[in-house]
Amino acid sequence: MANAQMKRIPGKPAAATGRKRKSGSAESEAAAPAKKQPKIVRLTATDLAEKQREISVSEFFTKNRHLLGFDSPAKALLTTVKEAVDNALDACEEAGILPDLLLEIQEISETRYRIAVQDNGPGIVKAQIPKIFGQLLYGSKFHRLRQSRGQQGIGISAAGMYGQLTTGKPITVISRIGAGKPAHKFDIQIDTRRNAPVVVADHEVEWTPQHGTRVELEIEATYKKGRHSVDGYVEQTAMANPHAQITYVAPTGERTELPRVAAELPKPPQEIKPHPHGVELGILLKMLHDTKAKNLRGFLTSEFSRVSPAVAEEIAGTAGLSAGMTTQKAAREQAEALYKAIQATKLMAPPSNVLSPIGEELLLEGLKKQIDARFYAATSRSPSVYRGNPFLVEAAIAFGGEHLPADEPITLIRFANRVPLLYQQSACAVTKSVIQTNWKAYGIQQSRGALPLGPMIVMVHIASVWVPFTSESKEAVASYPEIMKDIKLALQDVGRKLGIFIRRGLREADAEKKRSYIEKYIPHIGIALQEILAISDKEKDKVCATLKDTLERSRKL
Amino acid sequence: MANAQMKRIPGKPAAATGRKRKSGSAESEAAAPAKKQPKIVRLTATDLAEKQREISVSEFFTKNRHLLGFDSPAKALLTTVKEAVDNALDACEEAGILPDLLLEIQEISETRYRIAVQDNGPGIVKAQIPKIFGQLLYGSKFHRLRQSRGQQGIGISAAGMYGQLTTGKPITVISRIGAGKPAHKFDIQIDTRRNAPVVVADHEVEWTPQHGTRVELEIEATYKKGRHSVDGYVEQTAMANPHAQITYVAPTGERTELPRVAAELPKPPQEIKPHPHGVELGILLKMLHDTKAKNLRGFLTSEFSRVSPAVAEEIAGTAGLSAGMTTQKAAREQAEALYKAIQATKLMAPPSNVLSPIGEELLLEGLKKQIDARFYAATSRSPSVYRGNPFLVEAAIAFGGEHLPADEPITLIRFANRVPLLYQQSACAVTKSVIQTNWKAYGIQQSRGALPLGPMIVMVHIASVWVPFTSESKEAVASYPEIMKDIKLALQDVGRKLGIFIRRGLREADAEKKRSYIEKYIPHIGIALQEILAISDKEKDKVCATLKDTLERSRKL
Repeated sequence: MANAQMKRIPGKPAAATGRKRKSGSAESEAAAPAKKQPKIVRLTATDLAEKQREISVSEFFTKNRHLLGFDSPAKALLTTVKEAVDNALDACEEAGILPDLLLEIQEISETRYRIAVQDNGPGIVKAQIPKIFGQLLYGSKFHRLRQSRGQQGIGISAAGMYGQLTTGKPITVISRIGAGKPAHKFDIQIDTRRNAPVVVADHEVEWTPQHGTRVELEIEATYKKGRHSVDGYVEQTAMANPHAQITYVAPTGERTELPRVAAELPKPPQEIKPHPHGVELGILLKMLHDTKAKNLRGFLTSEFSRVSPAVAEEIAGTAGLSAGMTTQKAAREQAEALYKAIQATKLMAPPSNVLSPIGEELLLEGLKKQIDARFYAATSRSPSVYRGNPFLVEAAIAFGGEHLPADEPITLIRFANRVPLLYQQSACAVTKSVIQTNWKAYGIQQSRGALPLGPMIVMVHIASVWVPFTSESKEAVASYPEIMKDIKLALQDVGRKLGIFIRRGLREADAEKKRSYIEKYIPHIGIALQEILAISDKEKDKVCATLKDTLERSRKL
Repeated sequence: MANAQMKRIPGKPAAATGRKRKSGSAESEAAAPAKKQPKIVRLTATDLAEKQREISVSEFFTKNRHLLGFDSPAKALLTTVKEAVDNALDACEEAGILPDLLLEIQEISETRYRIAVQDNGPGIVKAQIPKIFGQLLYGSKFHRLRQSRGQQGIGISAAGMYGQLTTGKPITVISRIGAGKPAHKFDIQIDTRRNAPVVVADHEVEWTPQHGTRVELEIEATYKKGRHSVDGYVEQTAMANPHAQITYVAPTGERTELPRVAAELPKPPQEIKPHPHGVELGILLKMLHDTKAKNLRGFLTSEFSRVSPAVAEEIAGTAGLSAGMTTQKAAREQAEALYKAIQATKLMAPPSNVLSPIGEELLLEGLKKQIDARFYAATSRSPSVYRGNPFLVEAAIAFGGEHLPADEPITLIRFANRVPLLYQQSACAVTKSVIQTNWKAYGIQQSRGALPLGPMIVMVHIASVWVPFTSESKEAVASYPEIMKDIKLALQDVGRKLGIFIRRGLREADAEKKRSYIEKYIPHIGIALQEILAISDKEKDKVCATLKDTLERSRKL
């Protein structure tokens, strides 16, 4: 981005900034309305005070529904499916169940669809159903550090709210928590002014599955085919979740079965405590006041990861505090001393074996099965840390072949905690990292500030106990420098492998060109030799064969 | 973006998707944990239920503070200043006062700054101060449709929360609502778990200004110079607010005075009622139940803009409803019939004179005073509508001259409701519209999918009663097709003017080249003629002068 030279010189008012007074009266009018203005509405502080009001989080997101991924009917369909599938997969995995999902989308009209997502998960306890589906900011995943697809407690209730907004229909939930237990069916709406669920209907029903949950929503939406649609989402979800079995019934009635590739659940991610280096002063202060630990030593060792009693003593010492002090009444100054001591103390990095990567092997397998290409490479990096949160980056590429267009920008497939990200590509740290990687070094065309051009698919997966998204719709990863650094390292890793392949290809093409060039002349050389040396046809053919053979061998050297 | 050909063929399971079973046991394991997995944590529905919890909006944004623009210390400084200045300018304008702002940034340490923003606005009523500064989602601007800088009720309390998070210090507010009234000073913190203000201190103080508000925050931040910093923000704020007087004391101690250019307040924006075409079914249903109107006719005419009693009758008739029916108990089906009738009724566009544009003249003036260029153009379009909300787009360009780099991507300056947008450029509808505009048609270089290259600054302003931002940090405008269309039209308008200038420049350069070429030979022609015709030196000079004159004249034709 060009940094245009501006004319402003600080410290020199009018001339420097070029802003001149039009009339000498401006200053005296500073606290009074301009005279020529036809009808200025002069509101007093009291008038303004009367307009102040609380805004419920549901009202906020109703008006800002594009923040949640409901800005167009096409995107609304995808977002709704995504939120329901995220929850289904999370529930199965938390319960240690290999996921078996059914996704049905039924066209009611061209602008209205009914979506059903059914899982074989553990089910949901009856009392929790209304809040989980009828209240924004309610859930089990926010107040913990553990890799999962959902993390905010917004998604599925937002989809319900969008359905209610556009069709007036409630969200329907059927759930059963075990063989001997009844299945419950709820119709739930949201009271947006209070951000609270309203149970419209609640029955016991007959339901075949022994355990699991089925969610149905009717929403205003449009269905399109293609990569940015539900079709593409299902395909990519299967790539990143080889242990899941997915049945997808498209609005057209087409039924797609995506059986599982991996017969085992991935290594389950672990919940961790926050790392001391990632905790801000204000949070530390709050934790000191809220802790149940008896003293500072206990607080440090029980509330954080990587703090042994010895390390706790060290931190307390550096802060000039006693490890035995009670923390509940710690003053801001004491907390600040403690905060600085923590920053100054060398600590082990956060535990990194808590994440659940896809792994190189399954990345390659997924890519190979989806795309016919000439070259594949994958890498799964070891974990790093941003703001105290462990994360890891995986990347894979497919290159060449007739199915990938040669002169188009590459296709970028992004995943976060195994969830495909289909929108807001340009706002994503992944895209920025791809653009900032020097692909020319690997033999790939690239214009400045743009995606590389060529027959290539690049796939990037970020797994973390807390993925920082750029909005509540979770479509793009925020550009933390630590994350971008690791993405670039992963891309460089697969890029180098690609470079070797491309250079070898170029060398071979070059040799091939020379060879065919000389080959073309060997018969003429034979004829010339025959004339000069008066040799027989047989001898001529032998000479030609020898020449050709020599050529072949020299090419291999 | 290339749409790579995927191998999946719907309807044909394993082979079609390429996902094959690795072992025959996968299916039978669908509802049971895999056997080889070392230690699967099997959580039941009851275990999961125990983890469900409410999340307060403050907790949500503490953990997701990058959504609010606090993702890096440099950005945190800018966001804090921006939120405070937005509020100050809004308050002054609502009270019909020409804004006179003081912005002071004091360096406490390299990573800690104290920010003070003081205005000459109407002040804030004492009872309102704690909630305005100590509670997220509280404010006067959310529940209305009127062009203003703030619209969410999040900004300034979020800045306070960030200060508390990083330095533990409360936000300090001094306010006075009139000459005879006392000035109040508050120290306010947020109880994040309850999203409620905690008043730490509250005194009457001596304060010179007769009315106005001063906000002070201490935050973790870093200060950098340049376009994306507070310096650039202040400069651009002055460009878009020529009626404001701003005094800026930078952390370096440098004092910059930006006096007002326009002596009058801009035309005050008007509050409007929602347009019927922009209201969703769910909102309509809620409005029907909540209205104080006695019947459907009264409801339609009083709650919406552009609905006369005659139009209300027409809508009711189309819906098969009586205009005299009471609305409070309207069923979903009736609301849906009404909704469809509204969509089917031709209505006047929303009132468009409610917005407050900067205007072509002040756009040009602002640009000319900030940047030395060879060519300027500006346009201020008439209002359009997205989702029932009026908006308008203004664009201006500066081109050429030695201060703008020739081979770099252009500099793009974005504004929304007169607020400069300094981050998330690539996610913004403005940027996308610039990229999608065919600049080559106007003689400007451009690679596919990239910003054009050349010595140019492009400035775009969007004004609306409700600007749809891509996140709560309000850094980028969401890509509504209606908005992008109008931005492109505005860009095409200034682009065409630029194209004429550039083509004229090219023609002139061409003519100049020819002229200098011929001029070079005129003396030789003179000498040749002298030799051939044996004319005197005087006659030769006359012939040369005539030739030159003819050349000059021909060039002007």
